[in-house]
Amino acid sequence: MSSACLSMESRASMAPAPRALPYYVAFSQLLGLTVVATTGAWLGLYRGGIAWESALQFNVHPLCMVIGLVFLQGDALLVYRVFRNEAKRTTKVLHGLLHVFAFIIALVGLVAVFDYHRKNGYADLYSLHSWCGILVFVLYFVQWLVGFSFFLFPGASFSLRSRYRPQHIFFGATIFLLSLGTALLGLKEALLFKLGTKYSTFEPEGVLANVLGLLLASFGVAVLYILTRGDWKRPPQAEEQALSMDFKTLTEGDSPSSQ
Amino acid sequence: MSSACLSMESRASMAPAPRALPYYVAFSQLLGLTVVATTGAWLGLYRGGIAWESALQFNVHPLCMVIGLVFLQGDALLVYRVFRNEAKRTTKVLHGLLHVFAFIIALVGLVAVFDYHRKNGYADLYSLHSWCGILVFVLYFVQWLVGFSFFLFPGASFSLRSRYRPQHIFFGATIFLLSLGTALLGLKEALLFKLGTKYSTFEPEGVLANVLGLLLASFGVAVLYILTRGDWKRPPQAEEQALSMDFKTLTEGDSPSSQ
Repeated sequence: MSSACLSMESRASMAPAPRALPYYVAFSQLLGLTVVATTGAWLGLYRGGIAWESALQFNVHPLCMVIGLVFLQGDALLVYRVFRNEAKRTTKVLHGLLHVFAFIIALVGLVAVFDYHRKNGYADLYSLHSWCGILVFVLYFVQWLVGFSFFLFPGASFSLRSRYRPQHIFFGATIFLLSLGTALLGLKEALLFKLGTKYSTFEPEGVLANVLGLLLASFGVAVLYILTRGDWKRPPQAEEQALSMDFKTLTEGDSPSSQ
Repeated sequence: MSSACLSMESRASMAPAPRALPYYVAFSQLLGLTVVATTGAWLGLYRGGIAWESALQFNVHPLCMVIGLVFLQGDALLVYRVFRNEAKRTTKVLHGLLHVFAFIIALVGLVAVFDYHRKNGYADLYSLHSWCGILVFVLYFVQWLVGFSFFLFPGASFSLRSRYRPQHIFFGATIFLLSLGTALLGLKEALLFKLGTKYSTFEPEGVLANVLGLLLASFGVAVLYILTRGDWKRPPQAEEQALSMDFKTLTEGDSPSSQ
């Protein structure tokens, strides 16, 4: 995709930064912070708050997963849209670091739920939420490792990076969407286990959790919109552009289907 | 995006059709049919099958939604990747018709669940699944109407179509993903209402439904991958290409952020 859309990107590098982009980014951040705050409000108002050494240990799980695998993961994807003119390496390091923070926070959330299950003698990994969750977490880790070794480790060649880049972008967005889907399944599970048939009487907790679900989906749509707007992509910098032109000339004979 | 990626698209129109594409499309169809068959198997084996005038009326709902808003909606999105050299108008009509079939089947599924609720005195629209479902259904209808009036109705100008096209594509993919998320929520709801705490004992129904959930997510990933591969986009035909070149020349002065 990168070399294919080069004509557009080089035009964007001459034009000023897109005017509407900062408003969309601000809106996405407002949505993301509202998601985190609403999760906190739900746990505080209806689930007794948060603590590690008590029955409240379970509540660490939803909060950590929402902060890590929803808010921070989403923001890590937006780094290339927000930092448009900084050195590519600085932006890459920030992207990688945000994913490290997201991973560590999510790991604390995972340890919390397994520890809570163990202390209470509950079964592990029987629900669709848990199956999706483990799958997403493993994919997230693998994507980070492969991304690190291709893009930050100095060994990979320019050609290898160019070929892997579209895959990294596709699977990054996919893992983010799967994280959101898993969060929605977990929210639904927590609601139905506690409320049961009371859910249908429009209990305040049920309504608040439904609103949280819609906010989670809206954050996903906002991040995806910013990521996929063609004219909002990061313009390549002068030296990258020259390199990528050379690369394009070298590989012009390649069939597009050979990737 | 269309005019921006023109260099790639015109290259693709000269190149033979991508070699790997048919295998990916075949795999997506296999996944989609497996999703429909697994939904049928779940309803047949563990829910007593399907009928309109009985307690089994509820079961019409998941089957119709999966056939309409998952399988057929996904296939409607793939039409432009599969029919690469047919007249643009024929492909458009097929895309629109598949969405009409998907809409009618989903409408039957909606009527089934509201009718079932009414007959049994159950509350409507209290759950996150139902909120997401109604939202997705309304968005799907609006997207179809707007798409029809811009792309099939002869009134819209070329410039209007070019500006609306990226929005139509983004919201089309988003509505498809939201449909999948809503299906996962509904599946989880149906499971938890029936199995309750038995879910944690790895009941066969729970395991089958978890597998169905993973299949639904995989179908979404497969369709999204085919849609977003830059080198698999439909090459523009000779007359479109000429028109779009003219259009590009006319609007070259536009700032990319003015859209």
